[in-house]
Amino acid sequence: MDKLLSEPLQISNQELINRRRAFCDRLAQADMGGAVIFDPASVFYFTNFAFIATERPIALVITPASRAVLLVPRLEREHAQKQAFVDDVRSYDEYPDQVHPMQHLAGILRELTMDQGTLGADHDGYTSPWGYMGPALSEVLPNARLRDCRRIVQEMRMIKSPAEIALIRESARWGNLAHTLLQQYAKAGAMETEVSERASLEATRSMLMTLGQFYRPLRGSGAAAGFRGQVGRNAAIPHAMTINAVFQDGDILVSGAGATVGGYDSELERTMFVGRAGDEERKYFQLMLEVQDLAFETIRPGRECADVDRAVRQFYKDRGIEEYWRHHTGHGMGLEGHEAPFFDIGDHTVIQPGMVFSVEPGIYVDKLGGFRHSDTIVVTETGIERLTYYPRELEALIC
Amino acid sequence: MDKLLSEPLQISNQELINRRRAFCDRLAQADMGGAVIFDPASVFYFTNFAFIATERPIALVITPASRAVLLVPRLEREHAQKQAFVDDVRSYDEYPDQVHPMQHLAGILRELTMDQGTLGADHDGYTSPWGYMGPALSEVLPNARLRDCRRIVQEMRMIKSPAEIALIRESARWGNLAHTLLQQYAKAGAMETEVSERASLEATRSMLMTLGQFYRPLRGSGAAAGFRGQVGRNAAIPHAMTINAVFQDGDILVSGAGATVGGYDSELERTMFVGRAGDEERKYFQLMLEVQDLAFETIRPGRECADVDRAVRQFYKDRGIEEYWRHHTGHGMGLEGHEAPFFDIGDHTVIQPGMVFSVEPGIYVDKLGGFRHSDTIVVTETGIERLTYYPRELEALIC
Repeated sequence: MDKLLSEPLQISNQELINRRRAFCDRLAQADMGGAVIFDPASVFYFTNFAFIATERPIALVITPASRAVLLVPRLEREHAQKQAFVDDVRSYDEYPDQVHPMQHLAGILRELTMDQGTLGADHDGYTSPWGYMGPALSEVLPNARLRDCRRIVQEMRMIKSPAEIALIRESARWGNLAHTLLQQYAKAGAMETEVSERASLEATRSMLMTLGQFYRPLRGSGAAAGFRGQVGRNAAIPHAMTINAVFQDGDILVSGAGATVGGYDSELERTMFVGRAGDEERKYFQLMLEVQDLAFETIRPGRECADVDRAVRQFYKDRGIEEYWRHHTGHGMGLEGHEAPFFDIGDHTVIQPGMVFSVEPGIYVDKLGGFRHSDTIVVTETGIERLTYYPRELEALIC
Repeated sequence: MDKLLSEPLQISNQELINRRRAFCDRLAQADMGGAVIFDPASVFYFTNFAFIATERPIALVITPASRAVLLVPRLEREHAQKQAFVDDVRSYDEYPDQVHPMQHLAGILRELTMDQGTLGADHDGYTSPWGYMGPALSEVLPNARLRDCRRIVQEMRMIKSPAEIALIRESARWGNLAHTLLQQYAKAGAMETEVSERASLEATRSMLMTLGQFYRPLRGSGAAAGFRGQVGRNAAIPHAMTINAVFQDGDILVSGAGATVGGYDSELERTMFVGRAGDEERKYFQLMLEVQDLAFETIRPGRECADVDRAVRQFYKDRGIEEYWRHHTGHGMGLEGHEAPFFDIGDHTVIQPGMVFSVEPGIYVDKLGGFRHSDTIVVTETGIERLTYYPRELEALIC
C-alpha cells in the first residue's frame, strides 16, 4: 500500500543522524575514535550528498561525538553547503595545487584532535582513478593508528531501513515501466541502442511527471532499460557490453532495467525472445526458472548467504549443466549496483531481515545464448518479498 | 581531412603491442620487473578489453618480456577471450569464493616467477567499491618488493598517438551533433532531462547509422549531451547534478556533450541562454570568452601546465573577479573524463605535442549563474589545435 506522496523521496535528516550515531557506537566498540570516509556511495549514505567524483578528493570526517565534517574542493563548496546534511563544510582550492588536498585533510583532523589516536578509514587515502595521485592517509597522519572500518560501513549498509526499502520499491515501479516499453519496442529490425534509449527516455519522462517535485535526482536521475549486448548468441556472455545489434527473428535477449530514487536502485532482468523460442531455448529457459525458484525458496533469515549459492550450485550438478554455470546467485544492492553481501559459497554473512538482494542464477550455453532473470527481493522476518513484479513466464516474454 | 572509413574505429593490435613494449622499457629503467595493472581504463589501454568493473577483480599482468596475461572471473572468460588482445586469459570462479581471487593472482605471479623481485603495480590491490574486500597485493606477495608504477602509466597515457587523436577527433564530430540537437530542443517550457535524453538518442542513432560496422562500442556507446543541473541560478554551481529543471525564459544553461569512439571521448561545453541574455550576463560571458582565449594563447609545448593556470588566475585578479573563481583551467582526457596532467598551478608537467586537454576556465556568480565554455584541444609542435568546433559567440548560443 503506497501512501500519497507528501514528502521528498529521499532519506530524512533524522535517519542520517541516526546512521552517524550508530556508526560512532560501532566505531567505539571497535576502539576507533571516529573515521574518515572516502567512498562516494558511503559519503552519500551518511550525508545525502551526491557529487561527481573527480581528481579532487572529497572526504567525510565523522568525529567520535558523531559530528560530520565534509571536506570538498572549492568548486563543490556552495553545492555541498546546499545539499549535504552535515555539521560543517570545509574546502580547499584545487588539486593538486601548491598544498595537496590530503594536507588540508590532515589539518582538519589535527584541529579535531583526531590525528593522535586510533582512527577508522574506509581506504588509506583517496582512490579516484581520474588522474589522481597523492599521499596515503597514513603518510599525512604519522601519529595516528589507522584501522580499516569498511566492514562496519558495509554491515550497516546491508540492512535496509523501512525508508530505504520504500525507495527501492518505488524504483522497482519505474524499472517495470522502462522494461515494459523496452519489450514493446524490441522487434526484429530494431536497433539495440535505439530501443534502449527510447524506452529509458519515455519511462524517465513519465516518472518525472508523476513524481513531480517530490523527486530529487540523487546519484542518478530517472529510469533506464537496456540489453548491454546480451543479444542473440552474445546473450551467452553474462557481461557482454553493448554491441549495437540489430534484432533478428529468434534472437534471445537478456535485458536489464531500473530507476534511481533518492539514490537507491532496483534490478530487473528478463530473458526474452524476438518472435519465437525454439525447443532448446525453452528447455534452458525452464531450467533457469526452476533454479531461480529454488534460490527464492532457500533465502531465509538465519541462514548464511553461502547456503543459497551452495543449493544453486548443487542444482547445476544434479541437472548436469555445470558447464553452463558462470557466476554466483546474486548480490546485495541499494546505493550501488552491487553491494555486499553476496550469494556466494564464500560469503558466510547471516541473512537478516531488511537485506535487499538480486536473485539471478544464469545458464549460459555457448553458441545458443544466455538465460537469466534477475529479481530484487527483500528479506522479511519469515522469508522474502519480491519487489520486482514483471512477468517471469516465457509466454509473456516474446517480443 | 578524413580518410574514408575502411577499418574499425579502434586502436590497432600493433599499437597495443608497442604500448606494452614501451611500458616494459620504462619499467626496466625504473628497476621494475613487470607490473600488475588493476585500473580498468589502464587495462583497456593495454588490451582493448572493456568490461563492467564489479566486486570481481580483473588484473592485467605484464611480464618483463612484455607478455600480457589477463586474470578475469569465470563470467568474463569467453568475453575476454573474444575481445581482449592479450597472450593469455586466465580465470577464477568467483568472488569471494572459497579461494579469494587475489590468491589466484598470486599463484599466476609465482608461476611467472614475478613474486620474488621488484614488481610494479598501479594499486596495492583491487579498488572497486562494489562491496569488494580483500587482501592487498603486498599481503599475498610477501617476497616481492612492490613499487608504484602509476606515474609511468599516466605519462604514457598523456601523450596521444595519431590514432588516439583521430578517435578523439571523430568523437568531437558526434559531440557536436548531440550539442546542436540539445540547443535546438532547449526552449522555455522544456524539461532538462527530456531534452538531454532526446538529443542523446537522436545523435547516437545518426552516429551508429553513419559509422556502421566500423563502430565498435568500447567503454561506452554513442553520443550524449546534457546540462547536469547547471540551469538558471544553479548554473553558478560548477558540478551541480541534474535537477530536472523546466527551462524558463532568461535561464542560463551550461551544457556538456561528447561521444565515445574506440573508448576515447572529447569534451564540449557551452554557456547558452534561453530566449535572451541580460546586460550582466553579457558582461560575464565576454570575460569568460576572454579568459578562455588567454588560456588558448598560453598553452604552448615546452611550458609547464602550471604556467597556463597561473596566467588564468592572474586574469581573475587583474579584472577583480577572484571571488568568482572555482576551479583550475582544464584537465587531460582520453579514456577517462579527466586524466592527468592538469592545468593547475601545482602541476609542473611540461606541455608536450600530442597531449589532449579540456580548456574551461569558468566564472561563477552567486544568484546570477555560471559562465563556462569547454573545448578539447590537442597540443601540436608549435601551439594547439582545437578539436571541438561548436560556435563560441553569444549570438549563436541563444536557444
